[in-house]
Amino acid sequence: METHIFFLHLVIILIAARVFGEIAARLTAPPVIGELFAGIVLGPSLFGWVEPTDIIKLLAEIGIILLLFKVGLETDIKRLATAGCKCGIVAITGFTAPLVLGFSISFWLFSIPMLESLFIGGTLTATSIGITVRVLGDLNLGNSHEGDIVLGAAVLDDILGVMLLALLYEFSIGGGINWLNAGKVLLFIVAFFILAPVLAKLMSLIIKRIENFSETSGLIPTMIVSLVLLFAWLAHIIGAPELLGGFAAGLALSRRFFLPLGATLRTDAKFALNIKRQMSPIISLFTPIFFVLVGLSINLREIDWSSAYIWLFSLTLFTVAVFGKMLGVIFIRESGASRALVGMSMIPRGEVGLVFAELGKLSGFFNNETHAGLIIVIILTTILPPFGIKWIQKHYQYAFRK
Amino acid sequence: METHIFFLHLVIILIAARVFGEIAARLTAPPVIGELFAGIVLGPSLFGWVEPTDIIKLLAEIGIILLLFKVGLETDIKRLATAGCKCGIVAITGFTAPLVLGFSISFWLFSIPMLESLFIGGTLTATSIGITVRVLGDLNLGNSHEGDIVLGAAVLDDILGVMLLALLYEFSIGGGINWLNAGKVLLFIVAFFILAPVLAKLMSLIIKRIENFSETSGLIPTMIVSLVLLFAWLAHIIGAPELLGGFAAGLALSRRFFLPLGATLRTDAKFALNIKRQMSPIISLFTPIFFVLVGLSINLREIDWSSAYIWLFSLTLFTVAVFGKMLGVIFIRESGASRALVGMSMIPRGEVGLVFAELGKLSGFFNNETHAGLIIVIILTTILPPFGIKWIQKHYQYAFRK
Repeated sequence: METHIFFLHLVIILIAARVFGEIAARLTAPPVIGELFAGIVLGPSLFGWVEPTDIIKLLAEIGIILLLFKVGLETDIKRLATAGCKCGIVAITGFTAPLVLGFSISFWLFSIPMLESLFIGGTLTATSIGITVRVLGDLNLGNSHEGDIVLGAAVLDDILGVMLLALLYEFSIGGGINWLNAGKVLLFIVAFFILAPVLAKLMSLIIKRIENFSETSGLIPTMIVSLVLLFAWLAHIIGAPELLGGFAAGLALSRRFFLPLGATLRTDAKFALNIKRQMSPIISLFTPIFFVLVGLSINLREIDWSSAYIWLFSLTLFTVAVFGKMLGVIFIRESGASRALVGMSMIPRGEVGLVFAELGKLSGFFNNETHAGLIIVIILTTILPPFGIKWIQKHYQYAFRK
Repeated sequence: METHIFFLHLVIILIAARVFGEIAARLTAPPVIGELFAGIVLGPSLFGWVEPTDIIKLLAEIGIILLLFKVGLETDIKRLATAGCKCGIVAITGFTAPLVLGFSISFWLFSIPMLESLFIGGTLTATSIGITVRVLGDLNLGNSHEGDIVLGAAVLDDILGVMLLALLYEFSIGGGINWLNAGKVLLFIVAFFILAPVLAKLMSLIIKRIENFSETSGLIPTMIVSLVLLFAWLAHIIGAPELLGGFAAGLALSRRFFLPLGATLRTDAKFALNIKRQMSPIISLFTPIFFVLVGLSINLREIDWSSAYIWLFSLTLFTVAVFGKMLGVIFIRESGASRALVGMSMIPRGEVGLVFAELGKLSGFFNNETHAGLIIVIILTTILPPFGIKWIQKHYQYAFRK
């Protein structure tokens, strides 16, 4: 493709993402959903104006790695620790139930092959920290007791989800389930999760040192992007998905990061703020490309909408996705309103669900029907809960502890 | 190339650019020269670790378009007007003399074909506003009377240079000199220079309006990059180099931009600052890729260093490059020290010279010898003048008007 045509396509992608994201926000839905629709509109489903070329895929991949970096950066492990075991219960139930139920229903009810069914279950485990944080923040519940439980659980869910993703990724490369390899990969990943943030932390301290006496500008954008991509490469080398590297790098640079053995290395607040301020334009530039690409890679025309199968499949999975996440709140001791709030807040799959679905499609697990069905589930679970949360807050607003 | 390998290459490019840029800065040379050396070290000249793949070339192109956007953004047309006709004299002489002398010497003395000779002359016309601003600023001469003359002349030089570039680009596509086409292109470019900033300005006002009631974050990075790339595409469509579009977009968004017919549309200072703050991490991320690419595309091993030709060629051109730029100061009424300062400040070719040389190579005009010879000239003209300026300032520091 010629350079100027590529520029035009990139412009169309960025502007469409912005316009549809803005419309979504106005309809009180997360912008991510709008960006996904932008891709559907531009892609083969509707107009077919933009094709997902290799270079756009590459930019999208940088986008998703940077997004996971941001998720890691915003992860506050301290907060997870203070919310205590309640969020552990919510997270582990909210991870296990959709995985097991999603797998079982796909495998036994819909007779989908085992690995594909596992990947479907895996896609349902996601929780979108980003959307949860946004919705709770908008309702002034970000710092409530319930908010702490939800955020802690969402972080744990993400870590578990990313590990599952790495495992399924290994299976997809190996062509089947191999428990020896799986054990090896899990070991690598645990080692990666312990060592990578430490290494990234040390590298960030070096960057900070250099910053103090650097003679030239632009240190933070170039060096932090290098750090993130370096860890994406490292993650690939150990057999994990590249976005895991982004997440680890973000975790390391988050404000409160704990080294193993109880040692703490706080990132100086000014430096952390500087990183956030300089990285956010770059992240905002690349991430919409990913969500538009997800839309571009869906072809709604190829799907037989008249078949009962796809509707039955997605509605069943939607039920699993909702109740699987809400199951955990039964086991925690809270008021009914608090339980409903926590459960509801865990439902949005958002961008994390889209990442799983896309990886499943790219690895050749999902055919068009399964992929589209999952996208429907992700859209519904992402759009509906904010309304539920607002309703609960309106009717029980004095029930929540700040 | 696999994704993770691309990530590794990108990391190597960014880190090497940073390390060599930092070393250059410490040796009081412009960082651009360091980034160029990084490319020479990583490329076929020395280690051969990184190959200039299509995607790296594309990122480099985005980098140079964004850099020209930045140059446009920093252009203060008001200042150019106040410095008056003195900078006009300096600029026109400093543009014409290197062009005519460079062409004549290449064509008659070195028997180089006409179009190639024209391109050599064109490369010598460049003045690096960025480096000039930096050096004068470092010496606290940025706001001096001499500084005004230099900046005004550098801006004019850039506009003339970019127009010449567009003309030579048209010749390179057409395969020869065609004055009718040339006239058409020049007309287009003049129209583009008048209309594009107006259009870009109007679009930026729309962006600003949207920003006021936008529900989602990340508006400025996505929309400004879209604007810049859209104008790069437009520039290509009218037959000019894409970076011209970046320059026009930058000019439009600069703080004081004048519409034709005397109307003024000031960019609100807060919005302008916001654009600058959010765009600068993105610009810093992409531009080093361009300069490293210039280094990567030089193969010093292929050049016969023992031949007297290349030395004679580059030293002759170096002399032309220095005296051609200093010629203009003879015609202005200033003290000897002021004249020396202004003339010396006009010499650095820096990134603008590299852009010309790269375009000449990509269009197939320059063979390895000519390209390498010009790179030597650009390096020398970029490294040496700052020392000269410092020397003058040290010995005549009371001579300059603030």
